[in-house]
Amino acid sequence: MRIHLVGEAAEHEGDLRAHLRHPAELTALPADAAHDTRHDERIAPEDVVVSLRFARPAAAAPPFRLLHVPGAGLDGIDLDALHPATAVANVYEHEIPIAEFVLARLLEWEIRAGDLQAAFAADTWPDAYRGRIPHGELFGKTLGIIGYGRIGRAIGARAAAFGVHVRAVDDRATPDGSAELLPATALDEVLATADHVVVACPLTPATTDLIGRNALRRMQRHAVLVNISRGPVVDEAALFDALRENRIGGAVLDVWYAYPRSAEDRPAPASHPFWELPNAWCTPHSCAWTRELAQRRYRAIALNIDRLVAGHPLTNLVRAGH
Amino acid sequence: MRIHLVGEAAEHEGDLRAHLRHPAELTALPADAAHDTRHDERIAPEDVVVSLRFARPAAAAPPFRLLHVPGAGLDGIDLDALHPATAVANVYEHEIPIAEFVLARLLEWEIRAGDLQAAFAADTWPDAYRGRIPHGELFGKTLGIIGYGRIGRAIGARAAAFGVHVRAVDDRATPDGSAELLPATALDEVLATADHVVVACPLTPATTDLIGRNALRRMQRHAVLVNISRGPVVDEAALFDALRENRIGGAVLDVWYAYPRSAEDRPAPASHPFWELPNAWCTPHSCAWTRELAQRRYRAIALNIDRLVAGHPLTNLVRAGH
Repeated sequence: MRIHLVGEAAEHEGDLRAHLRHPAELTALPADAAHDTRHDERIAPEDVVVSLRFARPAAAAPPFRLLHVPGAGLDGIDLDALHPATAVANVYEHEIPIAEFVLARLLEWEIRAGDLQAAFAADTWPDAYRGRIPHGELFGKTLGIIGYGRIGRAIGARAAAFGVHVRAVDDRATPDGSAELLPATALDEVLATADHVVVACPLTPATTDLIGRNALRRMQRHAVLVNISRGPVVDEAALFDALRENRIGGAVLDVWYAYPRSAEDRPAPASHPFWELPNAWCTPHSCAWTRELAQRRYRAIALNIDRLVAGHPLTNLVRAGH
Repeated sequence: MRIHLVGEAAEHEGDLRAHLRHPAELTALPADAAHDTRHDERIAPEDVVVSLRFARPAAAAPPFRLLHVPGAGLDGIDLDALHPATAVANVYEHEIPIAEFVLARLLEWEIRAGDLQAAFAADTWPDAYRGRIPHGELFGKTLGIIGYGRIGRAIGARAAAFGVHVRAVDDRATPDGSAELLPATALDEVLATADHVVVACPLTPATTDLIGRNALRRMQRHAVLVNISRGPVVDEAALFDALRENRIGGAVLDVWYAYPRSAEDRPAPASHPFWELPNAWCTPHSCAWTRELAQRRYRAIALNIDRLVAGHPLTNLVRAGH
């Protein structure tokens, strides 16, 4: 059995090898092996392919045992192109850094320790100490979480430990001990009672513009909207107006409306200049991007490949192979 | 029964009244009523005094039922000056904002979202997105907490929810579900295994310079020391050298070595310029200073006064009155 690491997956050969018990041969395939048949002769029926992207013209992929996607999203995978014998699995783990990012930003929104730090100086210390302006707390606040899947639950568990009242809106989620779980019909009521609202649902036709002018109008004047899902879940123009007119307290925006598709493609992240607003905290889709994420993901892939070799059921199976 | 609010306590008359069920008369006394006998004729034996400071020459305080300190520290209270009939109670609640501050700073130390936000711009967005540098996580890290009292436990409970391994050093603490509790003899071992160390013990002769050159030498090269206790628990010169020579990862310093005693007193916070070091994050003793703290404290005082009126046992009793 060979494990073919396609494109950027090859950078993580060490992470994979560190956790793999089965003595497999690891090979690197170029990024275009994701869509180009020229490399198919190197892929044998007993092999595993690790790739974020996979497509074949005329649905003619060679048979192999497992396509392991080293991420959660399957938007780069043409499932119909795969041979029926090929199983598909993915990995998560990004809920951990995303939840840490959300709590970090909400805590900083309340505390503003960065401002205190930036202003600290020996000669103004007596004034800074004697003239301290009290900041805010998370304790006792209400956090609305729109979409209570893997990411929402990771946020909810951490927020609950801060004494935050977590209200989650999701029609299909499993209840847990951290949140009051409510149906989608309760969205307006949750928006009206929340001090902080996190958008953590996937982007689908049903969630596009889910947070539009009406939803933003429900929010409290001091409330903060956090988007770590996908930009278009929130209506861009409606959010910009609400922020500019201070109809909500602010927004923490890590996801955007336009992404560069190549090195030459240089779109603005949005058509409205959120980054010019003092109450919009903008970051470049960094919330999940940690050193530990890839290590945990390739460890999970190694454990799954060992399960495949041992004939045990795979975790995070997207589809079984026949 | 009258409730006398001394000095700055009078600013919180509304917070107290909002929670008091007993229809008491609230009066404001000037700040010097804390130490000057001239106001004593206004204080009757059935009264309550709320004050951060209290002293009388020749230990001759008039009898009154309860001195309620609107803070945790008793360093402003001359207990020997009080009449034997006077009970003394204090309040806490500051463990909540302090724990939030510590988690906020540790998350920011790992994530650096403030830097990402400061650098965000429309024209550099494609580069920022494509060239993202992975940041760190709290998950799976080890947090050493020196002193596992009220504040340490509040930090431990929140850190545990992030998947942090919490190792607390305290000879007298009650075990909880958040931390591995170890005796003071394990200090060096905890320092050697921790990624982050929080100093959360009170300042006593035994803890002065507790974190000195030897202790700092045990810490890992990437480890971060957080001090939210009192400056002198950490040896100033030893810490400055360790930071300047990058023998530890960094320090989060909210407490200092010199405080202004009056408006004219303008000491530097320390004799070494920590604020010039990029790996020292300095703030002006702000960690507990929230809008909600005073509200919670005066609510706790109101509940205690209602208990006193109802003849129920008081909470946070420092000493009973006879």
